[in-house]
Amino acid sequence: MRDALVAAAFRLFVERGYEQTTVDDIVALAGVGRRSFFRYFPSKEDVVFPDHEGCLADMTAFLAASGAGHEPVRRVCDAARLVLRMYAENPAFSVQRYRLTRQVPGLRAYELSVVWRYERALAEYLRGRFAGRPDGNLHADVIAAAVVAAHNNALRSWLRSDGEGDAGTAVDHALGYVQTTYARSADAPAAPAASGPAGTGAGHPDDVVVVVTRRDAPLWRVVRELETALGRD
Amino acid sequence: MRDALVAAAFRLFVERGYEQTTVDDIVALAGVGRRSFFRYFPSKEDVVFPDHEGCLADMTAFLAASGAGHEPVRRVCDAARLVLRMYAENPAFSVQRYRLTRQVPGLRAYELSVVWRYERALAEYLRGRFAGRPDGNLHADVIAAAVVAAHNNALRSWLRSDGEGDAGTAVDHALGYVQTTYARSADAPAAPAASGPAGTGAGHPDDVVVVVTRRDAPLWRVVRELETALGRD
Repeated sequence: MRDALVAAAFRLFVERGYEQTTVDDIVALAGVGRRSFFRYFPSKEDVVFPDHEGCLADMTAFLAASGAGHEPVRRVCDAARLVLRMYAENPAFSVQRYRLTRQVPGLRAYELSVVWRYERALAEYLRGRFAGRPDGNLHADVIAAAVVAAHNNALRSWLRSDGEGDAGTAVDHALGYVQTTYARSADAPAAPAASGPAGTGAGHPDDVVVVVTRRDAPLWRVVRELETALGRD
Repeated sequence: MRDALVAAAFRLFVERGYEQTTVDDIVALAGVGRRSFFRYFPSKEDVVFPDHEGCLADMTAFLAASGAGHEPVRRVCDAARLVLRMYAENPAFSVQRYRLTRQVPGLRAYELSVVWRYERALAEYLRGRFAGRPDGNLHADVIAAAVVAAHNNALRSWLRSDGEGDAGTAVDHALGYVQTTYARSADAPAAPAASGPAGTGAGHPDDVVVVVTRRDAPLWRVVRELETALGRD
């Protein structure tokens, strides 16, 4: 019944346009009563996004099932992949809906509010994982926004290409950029990672000197600069 | 006239609630006709956000006036500060509006669409600056989203605290996180920035050696490790 309503709605949206289609038109084509429509969908807008509530619930459950062993940035990237999977399951429907949301400002606004709810779900999870860390909430919000932006960049490219190619590969690549950027900072709460000659762990960032040099620089010159940097000259 | 309409509208929104206030109520209190209202504001929602169109225009002009010498991530952070300045100019009004948007779902949706337009303005600028770079559009979208999320994290903390404290300092701190994360990658499309002893510019990332050391490490030990890192031992 639910699927029949969605199918009837989209057939009419494509044929007549979204604004010109009423709920009465949809129920007439689907052969059901108005009450059945409103049992499944609070409004005409909701029939355009029939799967987002379920996907949000899946995402929330997925994040709630996380353990302390899950690297948090990787975990939110995996959660974002649930949204991609929903789109990729039915490419023709997803592309049709994408075109519709481009044309109807009200649907665009609805979509923004759905995206916002996904982003908040990811941010809330990260806030929990980063609790007690300096700027934990800030980092959580920024990383959640970066994940959503990367996911949507890849998803929209795929939708604009009419669902050609492998959406999963494109989204993996985009999320890889976010993971590379944030995985280390999210992993190491206290101080910049110390490595190299005397990387025995750093107490305060000021105690660490970073030297960047060309591999082919004369050693005497590097040492002289190093003395200056260490305040030994 | 415009300011008088905004003042009348907010007085009524606070006294009676947003939904219970009509455009007729607002114009009656302001002592003007309906036509005057609609000359300034397309709808009742728009009177809640009287300054965003102007701020969006300022931001677009600011970004359009950028030169090749502007570091792009820093530039979008500075553009975001224009939004903060608008909020900070009138703390009492900003806090009042913040409370109103928390209560009225329609205003929340409106606000999301405004935020989206700011984010797109920043992303479009970055897309232009990153044009021709691999994944330029992806990086532009992600960095724009990170800037907006950082800005809004600080702005909302300030609004929740009823406009206490210095919003500018909080936003600077939040944007600093984004700049630190992305400035290097955005600046140097080819290789990590070379600086320090022999930082004469690097051709290929492999040509650069990064040494991180504690300031109090014995110099002989640093030099020995440096020799190893440079492949001279």
